[in-house]
Amino acid sequence: MSRMTDTWILAAQCPSILGTVDVVTRFLKEQHCYITELSSFDDRLGERFFIRAEFRPERETFDEQAFQENFLPRAADFDMTFELTAPAKRTGAVILVSKADHCLNDLLYRYRTGQLALDIKAIISNHPDLESLASWHDLPYHHLPITPDTKADQEAQVLDIIEQTGAELVILARYMQVLSPRMCELLDGRAINIHHSLLPGFKGAKPYHQAYDKGVKLVGATAHYINNDLDEGPIIAQGVEPVDHTHYPEDLVAKGRDIECLTLARAIGYHLERRVFLHNGRTVVFGN
Amino acid sequence: MSRMTDTWILAAQCPSILGTVDVVTRFLKEQHCYITELSSFDDRLGERFFIRAEFRPERETFDEQAFQENFLPRAADFDMTFELTAPAKRTGAVILVSKADHCLNDLLYRYRTGQLALDIKAIISNHPDLESLASWHDLPYHHLPITPDTKADQEAQVLDIIEQTGAELVILARYMQVLSPRMCELLDGRAINIHHSLLPGFKGAKPYHQAYDKGVKLVGATAHYINNDLDEGPIIAQGVEPVDHTHYPEDLVAKGRDIECLTLARAIGYHLERRVFLHNGRTVVFGN
Amino acid sequence: MSRMTDTWILAAQCPSILGTVDVVTRFLKEQHCYITELSSFDDRLGERFFIRAEFRPERETFDEQAFQENFLPRAADFDMTFELTAPAKRTGAVILVSKADHCLNDLLYRYRTGQLALDIKAIISNHPDLESLASWHDLPYHHLPITPDTKADQEAQVLDIIEQTGAELVILARYMQVLSPRMCELLDGRAINIHHSLLPGFKGAKPYHQAYDKGVKLVGATAHYINNDLDEGPIIAQGVEPVDHTHYPEDLVAKGRDIECLTLARAIGYHLERRVFLHNGRTVVFGN
Amino acid sequence: MSRMTDTWILAAQCPSILGTVDVVTRFLKEQHCYITELSSFDDRLGERFFIRAEFRPERETFDEQAFQENFLPRAADFDMTFELTAPAKRTGAVILVSKADHCLNDLLYRYRTGQLALDIKAIISNHPDLESLASWHDLPYHHLPITPDTKADQEAQVLDIIEQTGAELVILARYMQVLSPRMCELLDGRAINIHHSLLPGFKGAKPYHQAYDKGVKLVGATAHYINNDLDEGPIIAQGVEPVDHTHYPEDLVAKGRDIECLTLARAIGYHLERRVFLHNGRTVVFGN
Repeated sequence: MSRMTDTWILAAQCPSILGTVDVVTRFLKEQHCYITELSSFDDRLGERFFIRAEFRPERETFDEQAFQENFLPRAADFDMTFELTAPAKRTGAVILVSKADHCLNDLLYRYRTGQLALDIKAIISNHPDLESLASWHDLPYHHLPITPDTKADQEAQVLDIIEQTGAELVILARYMQVLSPRMCELLDGRAINIHHSLLPGFKGAKPYHQAYDKGVKLVGATAHYINNDLDEGPIIAQGVEPVDHTHYPEDLVAKGRDIECLTLARAIGYHLERRVFLHNGRTVVFGN
Repeated sequence: MSRMTDTWILAAQCPSILGTVDVVTRFLKEQHCYITELSSFDDRLGERFFIRAEFRPERETFDEQAFQENFLPRAADFDMTFELTAPAKRTGAVILVSKADHCLNDLLYRYRTGQLALDIKAIISNHPDLESLASWHDLPYHHLPITPDTKADQEAQVLDIIEQTGAELVILARYMQVLSPRMCELLDGRAINIHHSLLPGFKGAKPYHQAYDKGVKLVGATAHYINNDLDEGPIIAQGVEPVDHTHYPEDLVAKGRDIECLTLARAIGYHLERRVFLHNGRTVVFGN
Repeated sequence: MSRMTDTWILAAQCPSILGTVDVVTRFLKEQHCYITELSSFDDRLGERFFIRAEFRPERETFDEQAFQENFLPRAADFDMTFELTAPAKRTGAVILVSKADHCLNDLLYRYRTGQLALDIKAIISNHPDLESLASWHDLPYHHLPITPDTKADQEAQVLDIIEQTGAELVILARYMQVLSPRMCELLDGRAINIHHSLLPGFKGAKPYHQAYDKGVKLVGATAHYINNDLDEGPIIAQGVEPVDHTHYPEDLVAKGRDIECLTLARAIGYHLERRVFLHNGRTVVFGN
Repeated sequence: MSRMTDTWILAAQCPSILGTVDVVTRFLKEQHCYITELSSFDDRLGERFFIRAEFRPERETFDEQAFQENFLPRAADFDMTFELTAPAKRTGAVILVSKADHCLNDLLYRYRTGQLALDIKAIISNHPDLESLASWHDLPYHHLPITPDTKADQEAQVLDIIEQTGAELVILARYMQVLSPRMCELLDGRAINIHHSLLPGFKGAKPYHQAYDKGVKLVGATAHYINNDLDEGPIIAQGVEPVDHTHYPEDLVAKGRDIECLTLARAIGYHLERRVFLHNGRTVVFGN
């Protein structure tokens, strides 16, 4: 993103208390940081405060560690969690795929052209099919087959790779496997899935056949954080495309692909730019 | 509709057999009718054929009754049902409402300005609130209250009005009442409902609260024929609007209103122009 | 708007200087005001800062005048202009129309149901056609015909009504008249027009015929502040609808009506909620 | 397209005369061809008739040449031009690019996965940058640099490749070069361009800067056949994406890329499925 080449991001959340905005903005001013974009929202029902600031240090040098250390006690007064993100930050990520390549192809294109500030550590698949796509992009590809018997082992291997590579983000780009509850827990808030339908409609098997039988006029996709409630995690982004009676189930699938790619890419972009906040199973997304 | 002032519509459906298109188009040519717009579709899975032709008689006089009588035996050969609609046709309709007036206001505006070729016979409500709106448009308003005890009686009264006025179409413009199975059956294929959400998601009570809890980024509306499967009838039209975290449930409701109005009006327009075909619980809509 | 029943709005803009956010947020905290929603943006190219805060006073009493007087010197330090808007504020408005009633009907519906916090002072038209619509809503209607000879006089009468009623906002709801440069200047930043096309395409006469000749697949509408550059004022909101070859120019006009209504209503809502900032011919819109 | 694996397409156009539909549908029946999808439209203003039929031969064998020869005299009676397209038909195409790779990457993905029934003969560019992308897909890449002095020669080389490969379609996937009038004429009706804006707005240089200066809230893309009127050819497909004030010109460019890819791919799909008809500078598109 062009506008992020010289701007840092401070993202924070805490309970709703008088002074939440001021504690952030006053500190930024004291640190001689110029705020270029600011969004805050107080969730009246959840009694939770969210803030995101893009800022540009006005002085030649900016000491990231000092900034964090100085802000820590102030944030503590508000029981505030925060994250500081550098302009050049590229978030380490592992991508899980199966056989379908449309989302992976789209992500790798955006990665290669710098549209998504990702540092892709590995691509993992339970099938060998997408290895050549990965290798064209010079990315390591791990073929980790999965059977009912080996599922626990395979997940352990996946977690190993995530841990060893230090990946902060896990992207399920049409992975087609249900993650175990333990894995969901370990990846809470940092694994993004794309679901091939508008949630919560048409869950379960053959969603596009269900949609066809209802004669739907719109197909959609939902990008969400995974959680234990299968296909029901907190929503980050959604998209739709019009369809009509000439679309048989296989055509709905094809129509769905474009909107899946776009919706997943948008959700990842929001995550990387620290526009997404998660609290109690709901998201706040300062989109644009 | 400007383009319909001199064009008739022939709409038909039948099982998939060789010659289905030809039996219609050959007859129209013999009758010296010029086809201005034609759409046909053969549903491979349902093995059902649908056709809609707009045509302009080339001769000074056009004998509607003779046309129908002459076409009847040919249609019979294909087990084809058909409907001929005159250019000036205004479809008789009864509108059912409750207290919410946004859809009614929108429909009456389109009725008054000739955008919808309706002949509104009556407006029926279980509440008195919308009487003045009806009377400003010089339309009869029937206040028929409903309680669990009087539901059967009230439905009988509603059916009486539909029958006595000869209404062909029943519009449920946010009626908020569940129709009895018998009523659904009697109105099969000629009662259009607008559902305040994207089906099949968020059924039941407080759909917008459910949507809020999931953090949805899109709200929608679905216009469909009613059937015994509550809120699950064949879909005619759907629409969506983007929302974000700043939309509390009551804001989602407000956002939903615009898309409900537009989606219901579009569905009614398609029905009036005989663009909608119903077969085995699915619709074919030759939209534009 | 549900969320505004207890929240005030402070909207401000000034040149880009370090501390712009802090001067606002610190003051709000000192005044014991809890910020429920905050957006700020610094236009890098225009070197201009914009901020909008929704806040809720935490103390029983809130002295509007004292708030303004106390903030004035601080704002002055930043050459900042600001506006404070009370929760119950309904903005006085005059609506200009011609013969087409779709936008007026839509606005009056939203006005009557409280969706738009307007205090409609008068409806002015160069034609008598829409008087009954106004009178059903108990609103004064001024029929001020216009001819080339009387244009100056008529505009003077319009300005008189605006002045005498104290209207802060002027809405051109398909007024179809070109305002004189002087009138544009007097209404700078407070007159919203709806243009029957996506600007800057298809300006001038018969835009829908031009669109038809190009075979466009989308029609749109643009709501903008008027200025001397006819139909080229700063854009507040835009919308589109898909069309196809079956839409003759008169059908494009009909399709355009819905999107004109929605786009104008959205722009007015943004204006009333002080989400729109104007500077050097560009808008910043903190939409939702 | 799944639904095309066993269906042929007959597309035709002629002046508006009684019997235009019948001459097509009667012939198809005589040839024992079952029509699965039919669309016809009569342009009242242009007095021109367009028809597209998808059909499935009912007999084991289907003699393409005999079909054409038999239909020819009947079509001649109506001054009708027509084209018969086989189910397995893959249209030979040459793709012209410059340095930007987003549209090419998208097209090659769809080509490789069979979403677009293309037979890509060559990729031609005035720059060497995209050679590796072409070679990964095993496609010939011709680097033909262009300068004001060599433009005529370069175009001759491009035309040579088109001719020698027998390419029927030329795709300008962000080629960034103005074709000479002669080249436009030679490629009339078979060269598709993607324009980085909604036409006719923001023509000429730096369209996204123009859009930024107007404060647009939507960016779009237009796919059209090229003609001598630069960037003003007959429109095949258009798309839009919402933007706001945080989008600087370079962000508008980035936002535009996605919609350019999708719009170009949709237009090519329509062209390949013979859904697009061209007459007197206007298109009729039987989309879905």
